[in-house]
Amino acid sequence: MVKIAIDAMGGDFGPEPIVKGCIQALKKKLFMPILVGNKDEILALLPKRYRAKILIVEADDVISMSDAATDAVKRKESTIYKAIELVKNGEAHGVVSAGHSGATMTLATLRLGRLKGVSRPALATLMPTRSGRRSILLDAGANVDSKAVHIAEFAVMGGCYAEDLLKIQNPSIGILANGEEASKGNEITKEAFKILSGYPGFKGNVEGSDIFNGSCDVITCDGFVGNLVLKASEGVASTISLLIKDYIRKSPIAITGALLMRKVFKLLKKQIDYAEIGGAPLIGIKGCVIVSHGKSNSKAIENAIYQAINYVDTGVNEHIVTRLEELKSKEV
Amino acid sequence: MVKIAIDAMGGDFGPEPIVKGCIQALKKKLFMPILVGNKDEILALLPKRYRAKILIVEADDVISMSDAATDAVKRKESTIYKAIELVKNGEAHGVVSAGHSGATMTLATLRLGRLKGVSRPALATLMPTRSGRRSILLDAGANVDSKAVHIAEFAVMGGCYAEDLLKIQNPSIGILANGEEASKGNEITKEAFKILSGYPGFKGNVEGSDIFNGSCDVITCDGFVGNLVLKASEGVASTISLLIKDYIRKSPIAITGALLMRKVFKLLKKQIDYAEIGGAPLIGIKGCVIVSHGKSNSKAIENAIYQAINYVDTGVNEHIVTRLEELKSKEV
Repeated sequence: MVKIAIDAMGGDFGPEPIVKGCIQALKKKLFMPILVGNKDEILALLPKRYRAKILIVEADDVISMSDAATDAVKRKESTIYKAIELVKNGEAHGVVSAGHSGATMTLATLRLGRLKGVSRPALATLMPTRSGRRSILLDAGANVDSKAVHIAEFAVMGGCYAEDLLKIQNPSIGILANGEEASKGNEITKEAFKILSGYPGFKGNVEGSDIFNGSCDVITCDGFVGNLVLKASEGVASTISLLIKDYIRKSPIAITGALLMRKVFKLLKKQIDYAEIGGAPLIGIKGCVIVSHGKSNSKAIENAIYQAINYVDTGVNEHIVTRLEELKSKEV
Repeated sequence: MVKIAIDAMGGDFGPEPIVKGCIQALKKKLFMPILVGNKDEILALLPKRYRAKILIVEADDVISMSDAATDAVKRKESTIYKAIELVKNGEAHGVVSAGHSGATMTLATLRLGRLKGVSRPALATLMPTRSGRRSILLDAGANVDSKAVHIAEFAVMGGCYAEDLLKIQNPSIGILANGEEASKGNEITKEAFKILSGYPGFKGNVEGSDIFNGSCDVITCDGFVGNLVLKASEGVASTISLLIKDYIRKSPIAITGALLMRKVFKLLKKQIDYAEIGGAPLIGIKGCVIVSHGKSNSKAIENAIYQAINYVDTGVNEHIVTRLEELKSKEV
């Protein structure tokens, strides 16, 4: 049975949404959750009938959002550290953490190590499109100042993820740039373009708007850029939603209209809501680590757990190693 | 009277929306439009009573979107070239162009020259926020591979624009980065952070989501990054709008709801529609050039003309020169 270690304490709202998300997942999937955190707090949230279905690993140190990621390596009693050690020691197959994302990525990289051929692991996020098919954007923020070869590696890793987890055959791969023409891009992306030329599925540069129109399955970029694009996109969606609410509040007619449109807004939310995805895998490490938002609700944690289970089940890591070898042999 | 040279031919839809936008602006503002393009085509679109209110400068070469920007300098009979020459020769005060944006920016920079102290001109776009107050993002795509000093200069230019054109007193200035802490950013933005430290209004790093929440008036970044953020944001807004339409179409109840919410959607559109802004000034050149989307409708052209008139009226260029001197003297 797949065993998923879950940092029960690290999220912004404490253990409640995490334990709840774990219970929701247990209702639908067969797996063994290992909740890492304060045993008493976890048990208080856990109905009796679930106690036999989970394991608890005691850990009382919680790395808070204001702590430096660099200290994470020293804090061996922290929930994140212990969760990752469970994977390192073969006691768990994957980790879900809504705790300090910098600490999670640092520990995952340093304690589990990188896959053969991977220079830098990348955070991969699934982006909504009109058709419902998701595109993958990576790196969404694990690294800054990426070199061209890193951007090329991200592309390869994202392609494997698309094939194995999203079941997209021959996924299309693009480099995020300020124009589609091969002449567009900055120094780094132009070099990455050369490295990826001829790689299966590589279609050249794609623009910011292509992330959401479904024209490309895998979009590779530096983590500084990916983080900005992701945060700006979330900002737009949330501003539009707030503006609609502001305007509705001012008009009784619009309130009635909104009630009649309830189903539309529900469908829209399902399509663009972060909780429907639940987390971003850190791809390129020896293991499986899903990084969730600190503000994750139970639905997000539930979906992050499914992501971890699928990640482990598909053997995407072996696929990545093979494909990176192909890319490197092409370069020579 | 302020004279604005307008490339009448360069947009994706030919001269029609441009001439129409010009007429709309004439109804509301006193200025002299100089339409640059094919005289017959322009006159055919111009009601007789407006003929005395405009000038036409004949130019038949149109730089198309597929042409290389680098050829623009040689095409001296092109509409963009001639429009910019009018400013260079003192026959016009500003330019509005919905034509090839690369060609427009290249010609503006090379033919008009940079303001004293400006290393690179930047494209400044106004972004919507929930409160209605706009934030300025620059560079939105005039340059790639910006150095730290360029990013600092953009901040100063954006600050002058916010004060003079948006009438924001003591505008707040932020560097777009992957986190608010001073430790966040890439090599370039960290260096820009140091240059800007102590500059009036500078508040440090801001994140992608801050562009739309109104927490910062001026947001500075490299043009590669700015272009991606801008295009991704447009992509999100358009995808949300398309999804809402898709869902509404499937349900008669939702159609009724949407009718009752018509006013809400209209207000939302007014807030986020590109046409309400109409164009982005290229800041840092000796003159005034407003770069509009190729797909601009008449409303966008009308608003771009107002932008040009205001830009000329406020004397923002002198302000920029003074402020850049202050920044440089601080550095020494």
